[in-house]
Amino acid sequence: MSDLRQRALDYHAKPTPGKIRVELSKPAESVDDLALAYSPGVAEPVKEIADDPAAAYQYTAKGNLVAVISNGTAILGLGNLGPLASKPVMEGKAFLFKRFAGLDAIDIEVKHRTTEEFINTVANIADTFGGINLEDIKAPECFEIERALVERCKVPVFHDDQHGTAIVTAAGMLNALEIQGKNLEDAKIVCLGAGAAAVACMELLIKCGAQRERIYMLDRKGVIHTRRDDLTEHKMLFANNTDKRTLDDVMEGADIFVGVSGPDLLPPETLALMAPNPIVFACSNPDPEIRPELAHEIRDDLIMATGRSDYPNQVNNVLCFPFIFRGALDVRASQINDEMKVAAVEAIRAVSKEPVPEEVLKASKSDSLVFGKEYIIPKPMDPRLCSRIATAVAKAAIESGVAGLETPPDYA
Amino acid sequence: MSDLRQRALDYHAKPTPGKIRVELSKPAESVDDLALAYSPGVAEPVKEIADDPAAAYQYTAKGNLVAVISNGTAILGLGNLGPLASKPVMEGKAFLFKRFAGLDAIDIEVKHRTTEEFINTVANIADTFGGINLEDIKAPECFEIERALVERCKVPVFHDDQHGTAIVTAAGMLNALEIQGKNLEDAKIVCLGAGAAAVACMELLIKCGAQRERIYMLDRKGVIHTRRDDLTEHKMLFANNTDKRTLDDVMEGADIFVGVSGPDLLPPETLALMAPNPIVFACSNPDPEIRPELAHEIRDDLIMATGRSDYPNQVNNVLCFPFIFRGALDVRASQINDEMKVAAVEAIRAVSKEPVPEEVLKASKSDSLVFGKEYIIPKPMDPRLCSRIATAVAKAAIESGVAGLETPPDYA
Repeated sequence: MSDLRQRALDYHAKPTPGKIRVELSKPAESVDDLALAYSPGVAEPVKEIADDPAAAYQYTAKGNLVAVISNGTAILGLGNLGPLASKPVMEGKAFLFKRFAGLDAIDIEVKHRTTEEFINTVANIADTFGGINLEDIKAPECFEIERALVERCKVPVFHDDQHGTAIVTAAGMLNALEIQGKNLEDAKIVCLGAGAAAVACMELLIKCGAQRERIYMLDRKGVIHTRRDDLTEHKMLFANNTDKRTLDDVMEGADIFVGVSGPDLLPPETLALMAPNPIVFACSNPDPEIRPELAHEIRDDLIMATGRSDYPNQVNNVLCFPFIFRGALDVRASQINDEMKVAAVEAIRAVSKEPVPEEVLKASKSDSLVFGKEYIIPKPMDPRLCSRIATAVAKAAIESGVAGLETPPDYA
Repeated sequence: MSDLRQRALDYHAKPTPGKIRVELSKPAESVDDLALAYSPGVAEPVKEIADDPAAAYQYTAKGNLVAVISNGTAILGLGNLGPLASKPVMEGKAFLFKRFAGLDAIDIEVKHRTTEEFINTVANIADTFGGINLEDIKAPECFEIERALVERCKVPVFHDDQHGTAIVTAAGMLNALEIQGKNLEDAKIVCLGAGAAAVACMELLIKCGAQRERIYMLDRKGVIHTRRDDLTEHKMLFANNTDKRTLDDVMEGADIFVGVSGPDLLPPETLALMAPNPIVFACSNPDPEIRPELAHEIRDDLIMATGRSDYPNQVNNVLCFPFIFRGALDVRASQINDEMKVAAVEAIRAVSKEPVPEEVLKASKSDSLVFGKEYIIPKPMDPRLCSRIATAVAKAAIESGVAGLETPPDYA
């Protein structure tokens, strides 16, 4: 671990600080080049955009540009360390946008006193970009922030900790249910954790068919039920009219466990209470709610996913966020709506059912990856993800009427 | 001109929109690379920065990153066309920062209702960057904005339309005075125009030795004098206790004319009124206050500069802003103070007195460039500018106590 520490610090510090940079995408050799790029030539695209704002997509970097924005209030699992400390993570996200989807992305760290001030700041600079990826903003403020910005901005605003997580979770979950011979409509679901990711995951599962009254969400105080008087607006949506109070109470006969809580919070004896052929997504990172070795020892009928790359079935947002933005930006979508999220879920599901390219096996250091209990979600390095997800998302944007263009690009 | 128009639009549109892009500066090939760039490795620099904010310079792109920020209220000579229309210019500025000084720069266009809201927005995102270049913000708001941001931000804030122009003008002016055998202390100065650039130019000339009471500034209503009751705070500073009222009144016997006004506003018969060996900086762009051919016809004892690249002595901000930021960022200066501006002036002056490298002659399509009436300012493509100006600015920052580091880098 201290080896990883030093290697990570060296990676960030040498030979130059950081991991992204800005480059010219046009010639800058001659006096003539500069006369086109800057004065006097630059006046021409200025006038075009003044006449028609959409011309910004034609003459500037806007259409391929994503802002990764945070206030540093919930950095990874480290908590509220302030905006500047979040910069390596935001630059990392920008790095992944470029690496996986060819999108130009730049981080913006925002300091602010009130939530309203954060919202105003982001709304004021939003037109600079083709889309905005919110990141590492703590609950419950993140809900209000995203809602306000979606309403105020003309470009898509997406809180990846919520919706990226939800999309990949839903894709893996639907595949796991298929393998276990179950369906979402009938499933009894336990969600341990009630933060931003938990709420978004459950909302998207409901959109995919889950029954709200069959979901049992737990926070630090236990089951969220209708007789509690300490619930935030978002927890209230999951208040279950039940007399069950503890994790053990609700795990009895449950089909699905989703953990977005903390290490080792799912005891083996509780896992034993679940229905036959259960599904456990233990996404606390780096230490899951139950260790996969232990879980499989208790239940050999289990399908399990975690947030870790060193176990099968990694729930990793990078399977989603670069490509959902790729698709949204390529048709100039004004938002990323539920139709686009569900399209992303289905595209991810489909990729995992197809033969895996040789290069993916190599990159994943696997001999074989075949759709089944140990391979319900594609691997991050899978090059098919970009074209598949972006195409599906772009089409969904067009069909749901939020796209500014009528045809998606050909990614093939 | 319509040829330039189409070429400029094509340059911006093809093969990809815009002229800057984001690139990875670290490896992203293997799963291991990604584990260092993002989760779990990225937590290490996060913790370092949480402990010590200065570590952001070590582990992120901050120390080489400039934000080019505008609200689009005074775009080039085109006026207030709004933030989005300013994007090609701001990307162009970012382009020049990279091309000339190797700085990573990104544009941010800000929409806002009040001046205070603009200030808050920029102050809230300022820590993301190593420095902030304000651009194309109209007067008089630009004065309040710059003053407030310099006070609130920990990184240098520089309004290039004011201070970049002033620095290059002062460098050229001091060289012209030397050639004409005059000095700034005794010079009678006429400034036609009273906007942001005019005010900044005159203030810097005063810092270099000019006498405030020997400066005559004119706005649309004529000479700015102490009996006028329509003056903004910044014009008030140049209210002259004089009974002169017109341009002709004050041009009688003037040594220096600085025009930052509009085309053809200096009539030949007015130029004829100036003292022997006069200096005319006719910086209205693209059409100067008087055409150089005409001016030289009237006065063969003249030194003349314009904003145009197709005449000798071009006053061009690109001679200054990339390098003043290079120097400021390289010693982590908290501001760009007067000492740093004067150091930049002296560095620019010095470069123009030295033999010109062959490559500069070639790029400028000149047979020879020798310090004299037709070569008082270096050419934009001169590769010596970066190391000379950055070194001088960095040293001045250290000596004046605003640097975070104690030694400038070796640019040689």
